[in-house]
This record gives sequence, structure tokens and C-alpha cells, in this order.
Amino acid sequence: MSAAISGSAVYPVELQRQVDAYLEGIRFSSESATARLEEAMRHSLLAGGKRIRPVLALATSEALGRAPEDVLPFAAAIEMIHTYSLIHDDLPAMDDDALRRGKPTCHVVYGEDVAILAGDGLFAEALRLALTEQQGPPMGIIAAARALTAAAGVDGMVGGQYLDVTAQGASDAAGLRRLHELKTGRLIAASVECVVLLCGASGPATIGLGRFAAELGVVFQIVDDILDVTGDDDELGKPSGTDERHGRRTYVSEYGLERARELARESHAEARAALTGAGGSTERLEQIADYILTRQT
Amino acid sequence: MSAAISGSAVYPVELQRQVDAYLEGIRFSSESATARLEEAMRHSLLAGGKRIRPVLALATSEALGRAPEDVLPFAAAIEMIHTYSLIHDDLPAMDDDALRRGKPTCHVVYGEDVAILAGDGLFAEALRLALTEQQGPPMGIIAAARALTAAAGVDGMVGGQYLDVTAQGASDAAGLRRLHELKTGRLIAASVECVVLLCGASGPATIGLGRFAAELGVVFQIVDDILDVTGDDDELGKPSGTDERHGRRTYVSEYGLERARELARESHAEARAALTGAGGSTERLEQIADYILTRQT
Repeated sequence: MSAAISGSAVYPVELQRQVDAYLEGIRFSSESATARLEEAMRHSLLAGGKRIRPVLALATSEALGRAPEDVLPFAAAIEMIHTYSLIHDDLPAMDDDALRRGKPTCHVVYGEDVAILAGDGLFAEALRLALTEQQGPPMGIIAAARALTAAAGVDGMVGGQYLDVTAQGASDAAGLRRLHELKTGRLIAASVECVVLLCGASGPATIGLGRFAAELGVVFQIVDDILDVTGDDDELGKPSGTDERHGRRTYVSEYGLERARELARESHAEARAALTGAGGSTERLEQIADYILTRQT
Repeated sequence: MSAAISGSAVYPVELQRQVDAYLEGIRFSSESATARLEEAMRHSLLAGGKRIRPVLALATSEALGRAPEDVLPFAAAIEMIHTYSLIHDDLPAMDDDALRRGKPTCHVVYGEDVAILAGDGLFAEALRLALTEQQGPPMGIIAAARALTAAAGVDGMVGGQYLDVTAQGASDAAGLRRLHELKTGRLIAASVECVVLLCGASGPATIGLGRFAAELGVVFQIVDDILDVTGDDDELGKPSGTDERHGRRTYVSEYGLERARELARESHAEARAALTGAGGSTERLEQIADYILTRQT
């Protein structure tokens, strides 16, 4: 076992189970002719994983005094968008990865054409689900959907992936941080932000939660970079050393392993501090932050 | 000149100009590092074309007694989603087309990785734009966004493209009609449906407009199949005979050229008849229907 950072944290598995059960129950179509497309979408969507983003959404709902399950449609939509981005990132024209979470990637099983469409389909169905099933004030739903699409767009996930594949803008430490802020950070932040908007929350709580989510994205990415170097293939469910193979700048290549670990701890402390200012029942958000810092995979 | 169906129709170019000007003015990001991604998105989005879908949306607004420009954000979003689907359809793993509207396709100019991301980016930015800029009752905006994502999803565009690339379900005439209904028809229908929902219209007008939109999608596809056989490469802006090259079943391969022309005329007559029941100022919708039947490219 080669932990990124020593220690172990309790993860809110009951929220994870709620998310898994909800995702498992989603059907995209009743049409038999597109059954294999749906199978490809479910192959990637139900490949396991900690469901960090939707679990964050559910925990944020709880922190704001609501039932976690109230935001399941949006939480599931966020996981579907995350999954679509993984399918496209793994494509031969992008990172060309054959393994993800210990399973063959979508294009390896279903072919490149179906994998592209499975990603496209998950994106469309994510928003359709959120806009169909989410209960709450209409203005909150519109604001949350807007935040989610912004996080997925050019100033978010897609822009970050563009910077990554073209190695644009990662020429210095600020560029590196910006790349990851767009590629990973914006969607993690949106997992919290969407719920704040859905619940129509305002005041200090929203500011604290916003700062928490932003720092959490940074912790997540630094630990990801550390695990790519120190991780075990079997535990990671994908080959380690991918970043080096692609000649990518990472927090580790930029700062070295020890300094990267320090940076992760610093951002984690900032995230926890931001929660203190937020008030409410933030125990599970704290658990998620601790888990992200100390995760092994 | 080899017209699909003889005759010529007046096209509402003033609406097309409004759409073009609006699309031209959209900026996706102020970030310089992603400028080339934005350039790739604009390369395909601003490649010209008749803008049939957004022009339909504007004409529907007029038919319902509103100003055409009231629905520009949603109209533009529909064109952006259409463009994203063209970029992905043209990819080497899909139809592998090098030319579109007389210009090299996105992946030929910017590479496959950037083209995939340009498509993904257009989809996200389309919804972001609609959810940010569209004015009107919140419930109408949610309903319209839901209709749009449904038309883009597994029971729509993505499902239809899946049926097309895998040649699933096109084994008979009903399968062929279903394929095109999903791949092309649903987004054309959504161009009308979204505006009905945005405007909160109800009653006979909405039923008539719904029937009109559904038949119009059929006319569009039959004429597309005819033009692929009879069209001139220079006029089409892409190589004709693509369907035959891909061994696709089309209305022409299924029914022959003459019967296909008859079917197009029949669906066009149905579409026009549906408008009569809709009431309102439907002159421009009629013009669009006539144009779709008699277009040369």
C-alpha cells in the first residue's frame, strides 16, 4: 500500500449507496434498437468509483438542512457528465487509455464510434434528467443547470481537457493550476454550487461552501498527481505513470513529491477552515475532504 | 442544376440574417489559452448554411404573435447543438467526411482531439447560452430546455446517429423512417416545440405546429436522400453519393427516386395542411416548408 498521504478517513458510504441505487435505476430509452448504446453508457456509468461529486452534492444538501435525497436528480446528472468526460478523455484520439477503474474502457468494448455517442448521450441525458426530475423552485433549477453547463463548457471541463491534450497554458505553475481548475475543479465545485442554487441558500453559508468546494478541487488534483506516481496499478484500476508517459506537467513534476504532499495538506486545511465559516451540519462534507486527502485510489 | 423537386421557394432570409448576426456575436470564453478551441468551434458554427432550425424557431415565435428575436438564445442553442452533431458525425471513427459546406471539416483543420472537444464544447455552451440569455417565464424555459435535451439524447439525435453508424434498425421501411425521425426529425421538431413551450402557448395552435414540425422533418430527410443521389458536389458543398459509399439504406434506395419525390410532396402537403389548423401568421413557416421541399443543396 502506497498512500498519497498517510492516514485513513471515514467516507459517507450511505450517501454513496443512495447515488449508486439511483444511477442503477435510470433508463435512457425504451427503444430496443438502441439497447447496445444504452449498455455502453451504463458500462461506464456503473463501473463503480466513490461517486465523489454526487456524494458532495448530497452532503451539501444536508449541510443546508435538507434531505440528501432531495437533490438526487442533479447529483446523478453531475456524475453522468463526469462519466461522459471520462469516456471522451479515454478515446484513442485523446489519452488513448484502455483501462479505467479496472475495466476495459468504453471504446475498447464498444468501438470508438459508439463510445463517442455514449459520451454525447450521457451529456444530453444528464441534463434531461435534471430538468425533468429535479423538484424545487424553477429559478433555482435554471440557475443550477446554468452552473452545471458552465462547469462543463469552455471555461470549465472542456476547456481544461483542451489545455491538457494540447499542453497549452501548462508552461508554468499558474498555468498548471488553471488547467486543473478548469478540467477537474469546476465540476467538483459545481457539485456544491448547484445544490446551493437549488436550495436558494444565501449569506455566509454559500460563501463558505464556495471556498470549500474550490479548495477541495485543488486537493483532489494534487492527490491525483501523487497517486499517478506512487499508486499501485491494481489499486488504481488503471496503469500508473500515465502522466509521465504523456509527458504531462503535474504537481509532482513541478514541485516534487514532498512539496506536492504539503500543498495538498495546505489546501485541505483551507477547505476545512472554509467549512467552519459555513455553519450547518457539515460533518459529512468534512469526511469527504478528509477522504479526498488520504485516498489510496 | 439538378433539383430534388422542381420549383423554387422564397426563403425568409431576414430571419437567417438575424440568426447569423447573433451567432457571430457569441463569445465562449475570454481566456486566451483556449482561443484555438473557440476558433475550432466557430470554424464549424460559422461555416454558413441556411440555418433552417433557428429560422424555424424565429418563424414559430412570429406565428405565435411574438417578435422573432425574442427566442434568439434558444434558436442559437439549437443551431449550436446541430453543429456539434455535425462535427462528431464527420469524425474518422464515424462518417469520416473531410468536407462540409464546401469547407474542410473540423477534425481535418484542428485534429481529431480538438474536434471532439469542439463538439462537446458547443453542446455545453448551447445550453449555457439558452439558460443564461433566454427571457421568459421560468417554467417555460425549463420545459424548452428539457425538450431540447430530449431531442439531443438517446431517444433523439444521438440514438439516431447510433442507428445510422451501426446500421441497426434500418432493415425495413419503418426502421428507416424511425432512424431519420430520431437523427434529424427530433431536432427539427424541437425547433418549433421549444418556442411553443417558451411562449407558453396552448390549444389547437400547438397541436397544428407540432404536426407541422414532425412532417417537416420527414420532408427534410427525404429531400436530403434525393440530393445525395442527384446533387452536384459543388452545390452541395460535400461529395454526393456518400450514402451509397457507406452502404446506407435511404428513401431513394428503398423506394426509388420517383416514389421518394412523391413521398416528399405528400409529407410537405401534410405539413402545410397542419399549419392551416394552427392559425396565426404562418406565412414564414409556409415559406420554410416550401424551401425545404424544393432546395437544391
